[in-house]
Amino acid sequence: MAIDSPEPKTNGHSETQYGKNVVNGLKKEEEIENSSVHKLSFEQDHVLKTFRLLIADLCGQFNGGHPGGAIGMAAIGVALWKYVMRYAPHTPDYFNRDRFVLSNGYKDMTLDQLRSYHSDRVDALCPGHPEIEHEGIEVTTGPLGQGIANAVGLAMATKNLQATYNKPGFDVVSNHTWCMVGDACLQEGVGLEAISFAGHLKLNNLTVIYDNNQITCDGSVDLTNTEDINAKMRASGWDVIDIEDGCFDIEGIVQALEKGRASTDKPTFINVRTIIGLGSAVAGNAVAHGAAFAKDDVKNMKKLYSFKEDEHFVISDTAREFFSDIPSRGQDLVQGWQKQVQEYEAKYPELGAEFRRRVEGRLPGNWKDMIPSTFPDKPTATRAASGLVFNPIAQVANNFMVGTADLSPSVNMIWKGKVDFQNPDLKTTCGIVGNYSGRYIHYGVREHAMAAISNGLAAYAPGTFVPTTSSFFMFYLYAAPAVRMGALQQLQVIHAATHDSIGLGEDGPTHQPIELAALYRAMPNILYIRPGDSEETAGAWIAAIEAKKTPSIISTSRHTLPQQANTRREGVAKGAYVLQEVEDADVTLIGVGAELCFAVDVATELTAMGVKARIVSFPCQRLFEAQSLEYKRDTLRRHRGIPAVVIEPYAPNGWERYANAAICLTRFGHSLPGKAAYKYFGFEVGSMTAKVAEYLERLKGDSILQHEFIEL
Amino acid sequence: MAIDSPEPKTNGHSETQYGKNVVNGLKKEEEIENSSVHKLSFEQDHVLKTFRLLIADLCGQFNGGHPGGAIGMAAIGVALWKYVMRYAPHTPDYFNRDRFVLSNGYKDMTLDQLRSYHSDRVDALCPGHPEIEHEGIEVTTGPLGQGIANAVGLAMATKNLQATYNKPGFDVVSNHTWCMVGDACLQEGVGLEAISFAGHLKLNNLTVIYDNNQITCDGSVDLTNTEDINAKMRASGWDVIDIEDGCFDIEGIVQALEKGRASTDKPTFINVRTIIGLGSAVAGNAVAHGAAFAKDDVKNMKKLYSFKEDEHFVISDTAREFFSDIPSRGQDLVQGWQKQVQEYEAKYPELGAEFRRRVEGRLPGNWKDMIPSTFPDKPTATRAASGLVFNPIAQVANNFMVGTADLSPSVNMIWKGKVDFQNPDLKTTCGIVGNYSGRYIHYGVREHAMAAISNGLAAYAPGTFVPTTSSFFMFYLYAAPAVRMGALQQLQVIHAATHDSIGLGEDGPTHQPIELAALYRAMPNILYIRPGDSEETAGAWIAAIEAKKTPSIISTSRHTLPQQANTRREGVAKGAYVLQEVEDADVTLIGVGAELCFAVDVATELTAMGVKARIVSFPCQRLFEAQSLEYKRDTLRRHRGIPAVVIEPYAPNGWERYANAAICLTRFGHSLPGKAAYKYFGFEVGSMTAKVAEYLERLKGDSILQHEFIEL
Repeated sequence: MAIDSPEPKTNGHSETQYGKNVVNGLKKEEEIENSSVHKLSFEQDHVLKTFRLLIADLCGQFNGGHPGGAIGMAAIGVALWKYVMRYAPHTPDYFNRDRFVLSNGYKDMTLDQLRSYHSDRVDALCPGHPEIEHEGIEVTTGPLGQGIANAVGLAMATKNLQATYNKPGFDVVSNHTWCMVGDACLQEGVGLEAISFAGHLKLNNLTVIYDNNQITCDGSVDLTNTEDINAKMRASGWDVIDIEDGCFDIEGIVQALEKGRASTDKPTFINVRTIIGLGSAVAGNAVAHGAAFAKDDVKNMKKLYSFKEDEHFVISDTAREFFSDIPSRGQDLVQGWQKQVQEYEAKYPELGAEFRRRVEGRLPGNWKDMIPSTFPDKPTATRAASGLVFNPIAQVANNFMVGTADLSPSVNMIWKGKVDFQNPDLKTTCGIVGNYSGRYIHYGVREHAMAAISNGLAAYAPGTFVPTTSSFFMFYLYAAPAVRMGALQQLQVIHAATHDSIGLGEDGPTHQPIELAALYRAMPNILYIRPGDSEETAGAWIAAIEAKKTPSIISTSRHTLPQQANTRREGVAKGAYVLQEVEDADVTLIGVGAELCFAVDVATELTAMGVKARIVSFPCQRLFEAQSLEYKRDTLRRHRGIPAVVIEPYAPNGWERYANAAICLTRFGHSLPGKAAYKYFGFEVGSMTAKVAEYLERLKGDSILQHEFIEL
Repeated sequence: MAIDSPEPKTNGHSETQYGKNVVNGLKKEEEIENSSVHKLSFEQDHVLKTFRLLIADLCGQFNGGHPGGAIGMAAIGVALWKYVMRYAPHTPDYFNRDRFVLSNGYKDMTLDQLRSYHSDRVDALCPGHPEIEHEGIEVTTGPLGQGIANAVGLAMATKNLQATYNKPGFDVVSNHTWCMVGDACLQEGVGLEAISFAGHLKLNNLTVIYDNNQITCDGSVDLTNTEDINAKMRASGWDVIDIEDGCFDIEGIVQALEKGRASTDKPTFINVRTIIGLGSAVAGNAVAHGAAFAKDDVKNMKKLYSFKEDEHFVISDTAREFFSDIPSRGQDLVQGWQKQVQEYEAKYPELGAEFRRRVEGRLPGNWKDMIPSTFPDKPTATRAASGLVFNPIAQVANNFMVGTADLSPSVNMIWKGKVDFQNPDLKTTCGIVGNYSGRYIHYGVREHAMAAISNGLAAYAPGTFVPTTSSFFMFYLYAAPAVRMGALQQLQVIHAATHDSIGLGEDGPTHQPIELAALYRAMPNILYIRPGDSEETAGAWIAAIEAKKTPSIISTSRHTLPQQANTRREGVAKGAYVLQEVEDADVTLIGVGAELCFAVDVATELTAMGVKARIVSFPCQRLFEAQSLEYKRDTLRRHRGIPAVVIEPYAPNGWERYANAAICLTRFGHSLPGKAAYKYFGFEVGSMTAKVAEYLERLKGDSILQHEFIEL
């Protein structure tokens, strides 16, 4: 939409003189005076002003938003989108585009779309925080620290594709990843984990731009952080570049960015001093962060900038013209890349076909054939079964990048011939250990970053990577904020979570999950699957791999479990299914995951006592909820008046929907060997059988109890 | 118990020559040869050997455990417990004792207790990971990175007490905090957040000892971490001391530790090179970490050490004698302190009485009087009400240390005259901003460390501090692992969580909690309380403050809520209560927190339609569960055949126990202003009323539906 725009009166170079109000102890006066040293072209200066006023107007229209940071970062934005970034606004999903990650940024929108910021339009393209479903947004950020970890994942994706597919003369993948961070991202643990890991990996294709305005919600950053950030980044293996005047020095920023792109051996950290809310009355002040400026303040800004005080959302022809070369530049990039890929496919037909498969986000057609059709009839831990099922798939399907947070010996995710993803020049005490074409990632003890980086890998392009993480289930509480962001963004990441029961034993209550399943069963758009034996583990992996827009947690046991006669991988796909049917049953026993075997054993004992027990295996509530009402009722048969008892040593929250009673655990676990832990909490077949029998007796005479859920 | 112990044959100084097997590329040979340079006394050498064999035997008896790290750290242990630490083994809760935090350490146990390690004895005093309920264990660790953050909290506790109570000649609080960390604690985000914050605060009373064995589960640390840790710690504001031979150089370690204690302006980081599993066949190898050594290996170790190969758990008289001075030294410390406190109380009667109150862990008797008995009848956000209730309490009860993760303007936790907890020499851009006697903590954007540090504050001594944290509710997913550890350790920490509903609005789905309440309602030993108006907010704080062994989350709204006529603070104490009774009701509406007002409005509309609706306010499931069956039934009246519908824009998991149907949310939220977000998801009074009425109609003809839980 067109808005009449005044042409600015000044011409040639303009000197910037505003921002004097910043000096109230918060910003050094010299910093502001620096701003006038840099000679901006008339157009550059005008575009900066246009952006800053546009932001002020956007926040003003609904009296909310985060104007300060965006205004401070305007020059960085111009440097990136006008001069440095390789992208194609009309082909936002151009495969080889540079990736940009920002906690609170927008791009590539029409003015009309922009104006939906903070509006009550449910189709707003410009919500309060960036969200991935909108074109041109690489990842959803908002919760702090996630973005920088996502960026590390994006840069790793590039590295892996380059090492796998690029050939001399054919850089079919060559994009750079840019990430803008604020003070907060450098305080959050997940950001710090990712920074350390990126330095270790020597991701020279990653540039982090620090919007160093020294302001957070509580006030000046030195209230809470007085470390030497540049020294810390260097110690973490990063190159560091300083920009003193980030509000105006477009040329300096461009040079620094290009240096970041050209880095040969390290990721680059550009420390850019900016002023939050520059030009406004609250410049340099915490209140500039999260609230619209006062109306008069915006008017004064416009006056200062020689714009008309009462006009809003003004974009002059000069400003439009400034960016007019970008679409065609972008289309040149796209066409050049397409041509190169065609030549590549001609010269390397096999590799070319594989590259195309990856670009199109497909797995090899035969992935499912890799799964054993049967398993040896011997007790097997589902964590071991998980390896039997998945590792052959990972071997043939190079979409999978598989990581672990320092639990390789426990999680069984190593396939035959796996190569580690490592900087090829890394010389460890064990020698050279991998290269960038490797797909097994030692994340270190960094669960949260592992999950957030995996989101970045998945966000590189749909299906090109299917990142897989692994750790003990309990540590997915550390990773939870990133797992959530994956679910929210509909990113397919598969989390292989082992040691998922008090049956893990000696590690004790700190490692025994009690309440964590309740979180993941309640979290939208994620599959939490607890398979009960090897066959169900096959079903769990199939369900997870087929869920293209949903992350999954495959939750397995440390300890061995017997193979059940009637388990079916197809049953897992339905979330729950009848393992053993009995007509005119007295009770349905619901068995879950590592404790499915208990349900089977209790049913046997009940039968011997003359109590007819049917058995339902229930690996995944979310998948079950997606079934028809008819299927659900027929599986549970509660509508026929058959009470159901679920057996799971977790907090029962949520099982009340499917069961009348639970043999469960509502306190923290205990440090005992697995079998002893089960015994200590009453998960012995004899005592469970007695509890169920007694419950059924009580039910007969108690009409109230029939309508209540109880813990046995 | 006494075990026959052979007297070692060697005497005088002994040279150490074992560990040659470490050199398989994993450790520099020089490092091992260093070990022979340090001349240990005969007794020191013998004690080190005794410890190392004891650890090998402990893991051997049940064939499990973590022998390698403990064996590597033996010399550090001797340095601390024999020479440096100020503690009293027979008075383990001596108030002014030095605090020691270790991820996998034990102390002050009889041999019989030690031998319970990894056993199936449910009363084991030596579980797989240290647990707080056992005497002499300061905090439960296990999940990595928590311990160092706890230690920061313990050191802050000391600082605050010193600044508040010490007088010239009366250092009634003078203890130091020691923390042993491994490679993993320096990778975990929560540890990194805590390190940065401790450097900022200049906690010179904190010494972190880095057991630098360069081994984690996956192998050598340089697989995942190649940063310059010393430079990183210096950049973070720490002093750094290197110890090259941490396996044997007891004297060097003692000197470093004493230097740490004497530091005047910074926390100290002692980087101690050790060898995991020293002396065993797997020395320097990852497999030494989490599995018992082979039997023959232990035999060889004993041979090498001149111990008898077939004897186990050998503690000679020499070894016992070595530590024999410690109990009396400890009792001297205790008596000296008690005497000093008596003199202090005589000289400063008022302050002395207050100090005694704090030592005994009591709040001022009048804390409850500070709470307004009534509130103005105007719409008030419960986050604002929270401030009205709590801030006057925090003002009079200096047990409260109140922190926020950079959300001071949003969480309303600032009381009149509050002083910031800061290093008094810190000169920020705003000047001097606080001192160590301050009780308001700007944690920065470090939610996880905030909660873990608060656990440390609470663990200093029972009730001496009641730490309080604050942030948006959604960010308690970042903090969740530490909140869990608080619940597990029965530490009273109160978390003030605001913005707890989709009603928060524009911040969008990343900030709108949907599934998080399900986690905290399932987590053992924590109160998750959602008050519905100001009166209930008073009830929530009272319940939280009175729960001495249970952390709480007080979950409040960003937006204003009407005051309800019949809410009662005493009702909150019962978890749920009848807000509006109706005889022969057709339905019970359950209202929760920010949406209690919806239940009230829907009831009004239903009444107008001729449908009799009673209302239950249900702020806390856990408190309700603790009530009698009679109270529970009478509150819900489901046993009278009255269906219940709960209204809450969260995942309904767990409500199935109390309700037949839910107006709830099972997908992620949306970026819209609060009112629009409610509307978008159907939380409008008109449409909710229609849903309930329609549901009641359907119920009449559907006998199956009566037994099922559905989402409306």
